[in-house]
Amino acid sequence: MVFTQWKGIFPYLVSPVDEYGKVKEQVLRNLVEHLIGCGVHGLTPLGSTGEFFYLDWEQRREIVRIVVEAAAGRVPVVAGVAASTNRDAVFQAAEFERLGVDGILGILNVYFPLNQDGIYDYFASIADAVSCQVVVYNNPKFTGFEIEIPTLKRLSQISNINYYKDASGNTGRLLQLSNVVGNDLKIFSASAHVPVFVMMLGGAGWMAGPACLLPRESVMLYELCEKKHWDEAFRLQKIMWEVNRVFQKYNLAACVKAGLQFQGFSVGNPIPPNQPLATDAQKEVAQVIGRIQKEFHTS
Amino acid sequence: MVFTQWKGIFPYLVSPVDEYGKVKEQVLRNLVEHLIGCGVHGLTPLGSTGEFFYLDWEQRREIVRIVVEAAAGRVPVVAGVAASTNRDAVFQAAEFERLGVDGILGILNVYFPLNQDGIYDYFASIADAVSCQVVVYNNPKFTGFEIEIPTLKRLSQISNINYYKDASGNTGRLLQLSNVVGNDLKIFSASAHVPVFVMMLGGAGWMAGPACLLPRESVMLYELCEKKHWDEAFRLQKIMWEVNRVFQKYNLAACVKAGLQFQGFSVGNPIPPNQPLATDAQKEVAQVIGRIQKEFHTS
Amino acid sequence: MVFTQWKGIFPYLVSPVDEYGKVKEQVLRNLVEHLIGCGVHGLTPLGSTGEFFYLDWEQRREIVRIVVEAAAGRVPVVAGVAASTNRDAVFQAAEFERLGVDGILGILNVYFPLNQDGIYDYFASIADAVSCQVVVYNNPKFTGFEIEIPTLKRLSQISNINYYKDASGNTGRLLQLSNVVGNDLKIFSASAHVPVFVMMLGGAGWMAGPACLLPRESVMLYELCEKKHWDEAFRLQKIMWEVNRVFQKYNLAACVKAGLQFQGFSVGNPIPPNQPLATDAQKEVAQVIGRIQKEFHTS
Amino acid sequence: MVFTQWKGIFPYLVSPVDEYGKVKEQVLRNLVEHLIGCGVHGLTPLGSTGEFFYLDWEQRREIVRIVVEAAAGRVPVVAGVAASTNRDAVFQAAEFERLGVDGILGILNVYFPLNQDGIYDYFASIADAVSCQVVVYNNPKFTGFEIEIPTLKRLSQISNINYYKDASGNTGRLLQLSNVVGNDLKIFSASAHVPVFVMMLGGAGWMAGPACLLPRESVMLYELCEKKHWDEAFRLQKIMWEVNRVFQKYNLAACVKAGLQFQGFSVGNPIPPNQPLATDAQKEVAQVIGRIQKEFHTS
Repeated sequence: MVFTQWKGIFPYLVSPVDEYGKVKEQVLRNLVEHLIGCGVHGLTPLGSTGEFFYLDWEQRREIVRIVVEAAAGRVPVVAGVAASTNRDAVFQAAEFERLGVDGILGILNVYFPLNQDGIYDYFASIADAVSCQVVVYNNPKFTGFEIEIPTLKRLSQISNINYYKDASGNTGRLLQLSNVVGNDLKIFSASAHVPVFVMMLGGAGWMAGPACLLPRESVMLYELCEKKHWDEAFRLQKIMWEVNRVFQKYNLAACVKAGLQFQGFSVGNPIPPNQPLATDAQKEVAQVIGRIQKEFHTS
Repeated sequence: MVFTQWKGIFPYLVSPVDEYGKVKEQVLRNLVEHLIGCGVHGLTPLGSTGEFFYLDWEQRREIVRIVVEAAAGRVPVVAGVAASTNRDAVFQAAEFERLGVDGILGILNVYFPLNQDGIYDYFASIADAVSCQVVVYNNPKFTGFEIEIPTLKRLSQISNINYYKDASGNTGRLLQLSNVVGNDLKIFSASAHVPVFVMMLGGAGWMAGPACLLPRESVMLYELCEKKHWDEAFRLQKIMWEVNRVFQKYNLAACVKAGLQFQGFSVGNPIPPNQPLATDAQKEVAQVIGRIQKEFHTS
Repeated sequence: MVFTQWKGIFPYLVSPVDEYGKVKEQVLRNLVEHLIGCGVHGLTPLGSTGEFFYLDWEQRREIVRIVVEAAAGRVPVVAGVAASTNRDAVFQAAEFERLGVDGILGILNVYFPLNQDGIYDYFASIADAVSCQVVVYNNPKFTGFEIEIPTLKRLSQISNINYYKDASGNTGRLLQLSNVVGNDLKIFSASAHVPVFVMMLGGAGWMAGPACLLPRESVMLYELCEKKHWDEAFRLQKIMWEVNRVFQKYNLAACVKAGLQFQGFSVGNPIPPNQPLATDAQKEVAQVIGRIQKEFHTS
Repeated sequence: MVFTQWKGIFPYLVSPVDEYGKVKEQVLRNLVEHLIGCGVHGLTPLGSTGEFFYLDWEQRREIVRIVVEAAAGRVPVVAGVAASTNRDAVFQAAEFERLGVDGILGILNVYFPLNQDGIYDYFASIADAVSCQVVVYNNPKFTGFEIEIPTLKRLSQISNINYYKDASGNTGRLLQLSNVVGNDLKIFSASAHVPVFVMMLGGAGWMAGPACLLPRESVMLYELCEKKHWDEAFRLQKIMWEVNRVFQKYNLAACVKAGLQFQGFSVGNPIPPNQPLATDAQKEVAQVIGRIQKEFHTS
């Protein structure tokens, strides 16, 4: 089977939910419209920044339904499936495919330590349950486990597992993966990595929360990488990196929500018990975003 | 308001679920009957050993319904509420109270780091949503955060928060807590602690998976502690500790399920992707249980 | 060969060093005299509290010489040998034995990860180099490695390795060790443990910095444990534990030095780059010490 | 004052020491001659690979004396000063300058946690004690502390602190440092980083153990970076990275010593208690080195 190739900027969408737990449909539609207008290459609802861990199944389904409808086929929608059991993951993935997503970002939550066979089975089960492509997500800092390179090699041999999203922050590990797996598993960078470096490694692009706030600038940077204008890409990367510095100080979802609120999208606060940013931090986020936008467009 | 006082052995019940995800009602009823017959002082469905992290809401509700019915008021049922949001925790707790539980064991799952105010709010929300008593559960090794002592002090001032279940393994911290909070928060030991030491600290008893497998022996040990026969309690504690040594080598739920299977309860395997124990490990669990029972009853 | 049995309170002596790096002999002699006068059962120069990591060989030798001379055989002196190589450890141990110590506390510093065979060899080399008894010291939080129980079992079979000093804070592990090794390796508690619990486990006593500041009270507590008056021991243990709470907030050597300074011993500041306690923390240490002494002696 | 600029490949020299602890002078001289012949840009005795943690002062001084004499001014010698106190670091640095080194690599060993002021003081003391340039070394995985960016900013303002050696593995942090400190602190990469990425960030070169084994290839790679031939540099980087994969599986010093032994330098085994590589691992190291050399020179 021939799959469409994904590449470029896939913003992690925030999940706008009101105080009663209702998804704010119009706000989410506006955000999707805005991001597509800015040239992003895909959309990823229900990633970390999308607070997947804090949403129930009804909310998740509603968010995917809205994003698929709003995108209307203009860009691929790759939705996060996060579960602790194979059974639940398979159920979610099948439902999302029925709703019309183009792909699944597979996320595994563990409580008891899990061995590599168990990890393999989880992602393989998802891939088996859908006909669309699956991205394997590795985020050791939050999940407490590491998907080892031989496991990724095995997963890459499944026909619809073609992408890997890495939030380990370990650049050398990516290089090693690239040596072992080659093009069978294309890498999407996360906020934990310097995207230009991942692009030099042959990366496919990046999936990250900050791209919600800097979509045009992210696309500019991606296009420089695609043309292998490394020196200019690197100059802009340095400017854009400030957003990571700020976000690492605070809760990621709180930062992206505060920034979008400032840009006119009423996405609201992070889901309790997560706390909104304090006023000073909100200002800091807004200032950094403003400064980066200015430097990108005057240079 | 005057609350019943809880004390003694509260086994963490395993969750017997078949391969289609259906709760095995008769097996669970048999287990409840057996444990009450062995003299345990309470029952705790949906703790760590109960694989709460791997069950959906329908399964959890079903398990609580069955345990409450089967216990039929003979011993208190304190059910685990595990959630990532206040909203979900409040919903679960209220439903469980409606089903007739005597208390709630509050468990907080986090993804993004959460500050102490957020932690306080979560447990306070649960306590506010029910009229029964709430046990605050702290398990830093699995959850990645620590409920600090000043936060526990604040929580202890809520009228229906009277118990604390500690799985930190840090005995000195319990002593410090006992100095700060005194009798406002009575401590239940977990498998991570040596229960006799927690009892010397004025502990209320223990909530733990191994008590499913050694209910009579756990009750014997508890009664020695209650009578302050420390030297004899300590002699038996040393014998019983072997079960902890074995369980720490493997997945906790897998061990308790394997042991119960051996004792004639068809509780089945841990929920995938968790793996069942290998045959050798199953034998090791059975042997250790057998040896402990023999030493307890011939001495 | 028959060895003297060690038991009771072995304060970790601080290392009083002036700003030019010279050991303050008279201060150290006064401290030794004071502690022996208070009834301590032994003395341990060059433990963690003794800042062994910050002293050169000349200073270490000088400290051991002074303590041995000042103790004059009234109580055993067990001196810390801390090294990263077998060669250096053997050299230090032999020199200290020549200076007249009664025993060696063996401490291993690692940089590269070391396997259990390497760990075994290190302690075995020390034992082989001296005729006196050796205490094996395990402090995983500071050193980054754990001496596993089978390794301790092997070490316990060496004739002059009869003691184990544990700073892991893991009470269950001590119980397991006691089950496996029995009386072949007697345990000294560290500040990381609740000493009364270690005594219930058959412990030999405790080696710890706080005993420098509360020698009489430590001896009182030890004697209650020896008589198995557990309930009264436990009541006093709770009172004394406050000192651990304070010390855990700050640098351990800085706390003990500040407290001794307050008690009239000019031990000076911790060795740079370690910083002295701020004035508020100094007061807090002095107040806690004063409060404990008062409660011990009026009860 | 105007300082010479350092750049390029500075191999971390191993420390050849015989079983009696004697430095093998001729072997070390041969290694120096060989590396200079291969075009390296400088030499760094007493780094991690040089087992500084396992050498006493006499051995360290001897090694520095030999390397300075053998280098005879052809390339700069930057020697590691590793200490736990300011006093000891100052002493070592001054001695090394007297022996003729061109610079100092400052390494801080801690036992008790140290705050950023203490860290600043340590490196500032070294800089103050010498007239040559000082490289600040950050290796959080081994030392347990992180030199924070504001501390590096302050240190960069000292006139003879112009270089920073980073073994954190955190590429984003380097980018942030580069944004904050600019050219005031030039970065040398370590084995934990992908050197080509550090070079794109404006890095000065790399200081690392593997460069002992692949000196010509390291120089080739460096020269491609200097000419900004990024795509070709990157192709060779991927080939060379295999050496890191192997080294991360084993003890670093053991790997480099085994590889040099294979190349005809009788550097011997790592210093006990560190263990030599097993035969299989020795072969693996030799094979990987051979394969990389072949691919570099036939391409």
